Amino acid sequence: MDNTNRFRAVRIAGLGTFLPERRVSSEELDAAFGREPGWTARTTGVVERRYVRRETTEQMAACAGRHALQSAGVAPEDVDMVIAAAASSRQSVPCTAVFVQRELGLPEGGSICFDVDATCLSWLVALDIAANYVAAGRARAVLVVTSEIASCSLNPREPESAALFGDAAVAAVVTPSTTGSRIGHVLFETHSSGADLAEFSGAGTRHHPNDPETRPEMNMFRMQGRAIFKMARRVVPPFIERFMEGAGARCDTFDAVVPHQASKMGLDAVTERWGFRPEQVITNLATRGNCIAASIPLAFAEAVGAGRINRGDRVLLIGTGAGLTLGAMDLWF
Amino acid sequence: MDNTNRFRAVRIAGLGTFLPERRVSSEELDAAFGREPGWTARTTGVVERRYVRRETTEQMAACAGRHALQSAGVAPEDVDMVIAAAASSRQSVPCTAVFVQRELGLPEGGSICFDVDATCLSWLVALDIAANYVAAGRARAVLVVTSEIASCSLNPREPESAALFGDAAVAAVVTPSTTGSRIGHVLFETHSSGADLAEFSGAGTRHHPNDPETRPEMNMFRMQGRAIFKMARRVVPPFIERFMEGAGARCDTFDAVVPHQASKMGLDAVTERWGFRPEQVITNLATRGNCIAASIPLAFAEAVGAGRINRGDRVLLIGTGAGLTLGAMDLWF
Repeated sequence: MDNTNRFRAVRIAGLGTFLPERRVSSEELDAAFGREPGWTARTTGVVERRYVRRETTEQMAACAGRHALQSAGVAPEDVDMVIAAAASSRQSVPCTAVFVQRELGLPEGGSICFDVDATCLSWLVALDIAANYVAAGRARAVLVVTSEIASCSLNPREPESAALFGDAAVAAVVTPSTTGSRIGHVLFETHSSGADLAEFSGAGTRHHPNDPETRPEMNMFRMQGRAIFKMARRVVPPFIERFMEGAGARCDTFDAVVPHQASKMGLDAVTERWGFRPEQVITNLATRGNCIAASIPLAFAEAVGAGRINRGDRVLLIGTGAGLTLGAMDLWF
Repeated sequence: MDNTNRFRAVRIAGLGTFLPERRVSSEELDAAFGREPGWTARTTGVVERRYVRRETTEQMAACAGRHALQSAGVAPEDVDMVIAAAASSRQSVPCTAVFVQRELGLPEGGSICFDVDATCLSWLVALDIAANYVAAGRARAVLVVTSEIASCSLNPREPESAALFGDAAVAAVVTPSTTGSRIGHVLFETHSSGADLAEFSGAGTRHHPNDPETRPEMNMFRMQGRAIFKMARRVVPPFIERFMEGAGARCDTFDAVVPHQASKMGLDAVTERWGFRPEQVITNLATRGNCIAASIPLAFAEAVGAGRINRGDRVLLIGTGAGLTLGAMDLWF
């Protein structure tokens, strides 16, 4: 999917985040995995990540959503649409967004609630979908909320990927823009020959939870990190080239680059292979881990909170996700 | 979510369907449920439904997708976007649409693939999302495909709802319109106080497949049919009134009305309470059952195939889904 170099006058009017209280250090995981002290942090680049104790998908989403609405100054009754955008969901039916409407206390019938899943790029795709509605005047305010609980689906027998993930929720309120805030060029593409490289093969029709042949490890993440990295090395550079051409930009055009926090290796590639300067790149992998679809918006929201991204900045949101899907968005915050 | 009464110049350029071979008669279910002959058909209004044997979610989707592309005369390389829109999915990660790209042999990197879930209204919501991209010139052709396998998640201890469901896949190709084909008024709203009335509470973070406390019935559909019907009786008539006002239409304006094939009681309400004439209303519940999100597009595609809906007809697509979500779309086919 491509688009011409037109702008949509929409604004991320507010952001909100939620982190579970429980901090899990890499030392704790070294012990759990039976590795020597320092192995987990050194291998994954993650020093600490959060795991839920009793927090639920919809509680986390509602908490992030409440903060986002407050920071946007948008009243609950002005939310026309709730998109829950994540790789994980609360349950199979109904969709997670319905529970976010209920948990947040948004007015009955005041919004349409649906889920969007583009794995790690779910939030970015949902932001693009929301921007279409807002730019066309079909919605006044859209709540795009990503609540990921990865910790219940980690495989201790694959410590390299298990140690990588963390739990988090992030919400954005998208409204019409009367300032310079806007979305420019957007590019997404899926390369499905990589479909098996990162997967959670259960919880669907293929390996149904009630199928006696479904094994526990099918209900856990499995990542062929090196194979993904190899494939990304091939498909990402021409993707970035096409994106920059469409955006009329160069790598050094952007005030900040917010990549998906896929892995240490993946983040290193952003500066070493993709052509960005270290000082442009926002990372939070060391303290948050890979929070699946929550990674890009969490790194973004934390950079805004820390004053590293400011209103008026031109920001590149970019990442890869299971699929293999690539995505990039040119955003004037 | 509301929208003003503007038109989007998009066209459902082609439709394709796939039905699993295996036909399951209500007599067969009478015997399976230990009921007297005739009970299942009388209670549910479903005489026959299809269940998969070995057909998979992505095979069904690809087959429907191939037919839709052929009937639209759209080449695989012109598909910019694949939206898999369903309540059921192939697996947890990656999303179903990725597997549709691969199974259909669509070009690597030629389309963005993501899933949309608004339970029974997933196809309708995805059609609306697709129409935004096409109308804005951001996509040339979008494949919206719904592949639902319900049969693996039925609870034989709840024969009234178990006997209701069937498996099916349907695809639509959405393109720019140079004829009179267009989408007019669209209205969606979610009433989340009804979130628990129809559910499949497993396969997510709430009752994880590997959680020892997850019971098999959590991985099956549970429907409080009468409670849903009661709630729908309260919220649907004012919804239709608002929709008609927005569309500048009356019930008798439409050449055809394609309701979600929720249940016999639900379909009876379309004519008895919602104000439509029986000859307007398209039903296939008796031969297909409730195919979740595939129901509206399947009834639509079969009516087109049978010559009951023709090019130029003004069609109302309307339904309720778990959530409780209501949706309606004014479509000039």
